[in-house]
Amino acid sequence: MPEPATPHLWVKIDLGNERQIGPGKIALLRLVGERHSIAAAARDMKMSYRRAWLLIDELNTIFAQPVLTTHVGGKSFGGAELTPFGVRLIERFDVITRRTEEAVRDELAALATEIQG
Amino acid sequence: MPEPATPHLWVKIDLGNERQIGPGKIALLRLVGERHSIAAAARDMKMSYRRAWLLIDELNTIFAQPVLTTHVGGKSFGGAELTPFGVRLIERFDVITRRTEEAVRDELAALATEIQG
Repeated sequence: MPEPATPHLWVKIDLGNERQIGPGKIALLRLVGERHSIAAAARDMKMSYRRAWLLIDELNTIFAQPVLTTHVGGKSFGGAELTPFGVRLIERFDVITRRTEEAVRDELAALATEIQG
Repeated sequence: MPEPATPHLWVKIDLGNERQIGPGKIALLRLVGERHSIAAAARDMKMSYRRAWLLIDELNTIFAQPVLTTHVGGKSFGGAELTPFGVRLIERFDVITRRTEEAVRDELAALATEIQG
């Protein structure tokens, strides 16, 4: 019988005016930073280039500073690099994820005992 | 110009095996408790009776104890009452919401300053 998984949180941040950031956009941004390419990150996440581009564009629109810079040419629709602000946004989201999870660890453990076997 | 809203969290709990509880199901459960009726709660939340019933049934299936008891007859498809476990589940979710928000208040405030005006 598989071990019951510990419950964990899925945290989104509602920034008002229908602007949200959550684990999906942050995972994409992180991957773009690692792959230096929106196209490669899109493939890794099994989403279309267009969808990935729209999500990144949404992040760039939400914040006063861009999260990413792209340069024309090169492989895969041009390279992409996180800006220092983009790097900081990912770090901030990771802090939020870690701290929220720690803040309710006992409640999540209690919930785990109440789940149907 | 409207005041910029403070960012806030939207927290779901992933209980494994595709079982989730989040603000939607908890809001419905709370409303059923207040209205003593799934049908009335469904109307208040502008969802079909069927959808409300399925969400409640999902909660009853996730946990070892039922969140709600219904009795046949009476108005609105029979009355419904939260069980003590259902009441506790709502309280626990409220604690989780409050504690997670408090745990990252400074990070949310920092994000607020970075949003596009």
